Amino acid sequence: MIYPKALEELIEHFKKLPTIGEKTAERLALSILNFSTEENEKFAKSIQKTKKILQNCSICGNLTDEKICHICANDYRNQSLICIVEDYKSVFMFEKIGKFNGVYHVLGGLISPIDGINPDDLNVNSLISRCNSLKDKEVELIIALKPTIEGEATTMYITQILKNKKIKISRLSYGIPMGAEIDYLDALTLERALDDRKDLL
Amino acid sequence: MIYPKALEELIEHFKKLPTIGEKTAERLALSILNFSTEENEKFAKSIQKTKKILQNCSICGNLTDEKICHICANDYRNQSLICIVEDYKSVFMFEKIGKFNGVYHVLGGLISPIDGINPDDLNVNSLISRCNSLKDKEVELIIALKPTIEGEATTMYITQILKNKKIKISRLSYGIPMGAEIDYLDALTLERALDDRKDLL
Repeated sequence: MIYPKALEELIEHFKKLPTIGEKTAERLALSILNFSTEENEKFAKSIQKTKKILQNCSICGNLTDEKICHICANDYRNQSLICIVEDYKSVFMFEKIGKFNGVYHVLGGLISPIDGINPDDLNVNSLISRCNSLKDKEVELIIALKPTIEGEATTMYITQILKNKKIKISRLSYGIPMGAEIDYLDALTLERALDDRKDLL
Repeated sequence: MIYPKALEELIEHFKKLPTIGEKTAERLALSILNFSTEENEKFAKSIQKTKKILQNCSICGNLTDEKICHICANDYRNQSLICIVEDYKSVFMFEKIGKFNGVYHVLGGLISPIDGINPDDLNVNSLISRCNSLKDKEVELIIALKPTIEGEATTMYITQILKNKKIKISRLSYGIPMGAEIDYLDALTLERALDDRKDLL
């Protein structure tokens, strides 16, 4: 027995978090002792509350503490411009940029037969009914999935099932990330940057 | 507002922990959602309990969940071989090695006039009375403080105030860390390794 039991337990809890190893877990657990009793209470309550209160938005699947997320509930946002993302982390990323005025649709994963994830496991049906309910408006979908086999398979699948609905569908451009050196790019990225090249004149 | 409020709060709590920045705090907070409700409850409870239950051992100052820590309470350990350390983290380190069969005395800091830490702020008086109470036994002190100005000042101070008590006092050896390349060592370490050289024949 190296640590007092209460501390040992807390270290074990921290070790379950991603990227946290033995050493860091120990450090984090010890740092809890430096918190004021009030801060400590608040932290513990916050952990309980987050798990209890957060749910998926009934429209887009985004993480929210209400029935409908603040993006879907916002009338100032273009409700017929829908950005399709893999998970709610992508929503946070787009919201941080702060330039996108449309709404989102969170698939909750990507098609991956190897991992046993089929189209039925994703929020695709809700996307279709969402598009149907907007049929009197000009709907535009922007597919924002990562450029992997799974991402592209999902992109293709969504494009296929919606192709007869007269909906404008685009995907994010592939290409050179900002600030990168051309010399150090991988061949595939360069090839995609060539394919997706943008007309200037 | 990028995150739901409950999540935003939890992220703020995680950001107060050492080494945890914005990105990691976000990741840790989100990972809480993957915990089962039971795990989540336990984690929150553990945070509260750790703060409430842990205290300093009334003999050595080590972190414990009882009045006297399991090291001081252990009769199989040599209670008159006392290793003097800066804080309880050092105790954990020594206990991990598992080779030290004595007990500890946690100073709770090092003398540092710049930071306003004087000898009176450390658990030195309790060390003196501890040595006095053991006077019928052969007491040995091993000073295990870090080799910085503060550590050496503290080592000198303790040696000074105990010099008339006929107590054997040693300090950890300074020298080359295991596996290090001599070429890459700093000059001071090499100098200390030369000073502390060990007779072989």
